[in-house]
Amino acid sequence: MEQPLRVCLIGSGNVATHLGTALSQVAKVVQIYSHSLQNATALAEQCGCESVTDSLSMITADADLYLVSVKDDAIASVVESTPQAQGGVWAHTSGSVPMTVFAGYKERYGVFYPLQTFSKDLKIKVREVPIFIEGYDASTTDFLLRLARRISDNVTEADSTLRKKLHVAAVFACNFVNLMWIEADELLKESGLGIEFLRPLLKETLGKLDRVSPADAQTGPACRGDRHVIDEHLNMLSDEKRELYSMLSEIIIKRYINE
Amino acid sequence: MEQPLRVCLIGSGNVATHLGTALSQVAKVVQIYSHSLQNATALAEQCGCESVTDSLSMITADADLYLVSVKDDAIASVVESTPQAQGGVWAHTSGSVPMTVFAGYKERYGVFYPLQTFSKDLKIKVREVPIFIEGYDASTTDFLLRLARRISDNVTEADSTLRKKLHVAAVFACNFVNLMWIEADELLKESGLGIEFLRPLLKETLGKLDRVSPADAQTGPACRGDRHVIDEHLNMLSDEKRELYSMLSEIIIKRYINE
Repeated sequence: MEQPLRVCLIGSGNVATHLGTALSQVAKVVQIYSHSLQNATALAEQCGCESVTDSLSMITADADLYLVSVKDDAIASVVESTPQAQGGVWAHTSGSVPMTVFAGYKERYGVFYPLQTFSKDLKIKVREVPIFIEGYDASTTDFLLRLARRISDNVTEADSTLRKKLHVAAVFACNFVNLMWIEADELLKESGLGIEFLRPLLKETLGKLDRVSPADAQTGPACRGDRHVIDEHLNMLSDEKRELYSMLSEIIIKRYINE
Repeated sequence: MEQPLRVCLIGSGNVATHLGTALSQVAKVVQIYSHSLQNATALAEQCGCESVTDSLSMITADADLYLVSVKDDAIASVVESTPQAQGGVWAHTSGSVPMTVFAGYKERYGVFYPLQTFSKDLKIKVREVPIFIEGYDASTTDFLLRLARRISDNVTEADSTLRKKLHVAAVFACNFVNLMWIEADELLKESGLGIEFLRPLLKETLGKLDRVSPADAQTGPACRGDRHVIDEHLNMLSDEKRELYSMLSEIIIKRYINE
């Protein structure tokens, strides 16, 4: 029988927790590093792992994969402070850090980027999470692709440029979307309600994307060019909300009416 | 046994279809008007209704409820061209038309506003749809509230001001959100991908709202005050997208970093 892959997890945050737990089903997690031994120990229990450390210099030299899931701006210092590791592959899980962070420090390296927002206490179906893989050479890419496909059905090769594009798209699709929900929540709170009244509508708005492109799904006063309703709405809003409403409506009008 | 309520549906679009079908389970749909007899007939079959018309002057005088689900700017002319109807209650289903559109034309009137986006071919759980009710007097309000509660578990009284606020909140939470998805989709298409790669992320982003307020759910470079990533992203974007990214990031920075 083939020996299971030996994985060293570096980090014990949300991404490390979800990927580590999924990987522990198809590989052996041999060591977990965290600057918090307590967090490392908690994750080790979930992964059936027997070795934890809070010292980068104690990281094992004989893992097959080193998965670096620490904050973006801590990746470089982790890379510099850890052993080369005898042919093991190093990969980080960040959408915005280039693969070249490993260059000069490690022999084999790549990126293992799950495009999902993880909360520690929340179950995520890793099998549905898109994972984007980059490797510094064909055999490393192949190694990471194969491993990723064992835990997810949605694995794609993506170089650093594409990964960056995914990240900026996610900023629009999630971060800016959340800002819109903040504005809506505040408006409703003025009347003693809250965003929860919009939840069925939000669910359906998202559900529409299963059937039509967002360009075909656009609705609302701006999309109809209904200046009367737009003006009424602007009169109800103040400052930030008015400026935002106006700018976004003009973009929609330009797209749907003026073309 | 109590006689079932007699409902006349005016309109055969998405809202009329979903509300009409739900109402037909708890009341008797006695007539359906549409300027398209074909649409009226199709909906009549779903509602077990035996009378359809494409003539406003032929609308029955003895229904208990006249539900006006036509386009916003057609409501006034429908109201003017139909009989007063002997004590029956008239209600429209619009978020943005004031109740007073009925004043002077009907005796008893109100609003029956479902806060949901409906597609004709898609099943919606009407029981989960928030319905907002306004009546011109207490007994009409009561009548509409009781009826709404028979088809939905989420019924709230809302005057025209609150309804307008709900509408503007929905513009932020849905219409502007959809614009963000258009931008993300376009960005991904430049790389041969599409919004479908973000779907698990979007689902989880929306799912978060079940547990935390949007203000607590905000993530991303602007929320962290990460000017380095923001500048990188701005350099990748052109024109509309760059301006939009910059404006929205500054709003988030102002909210999360500069306060």
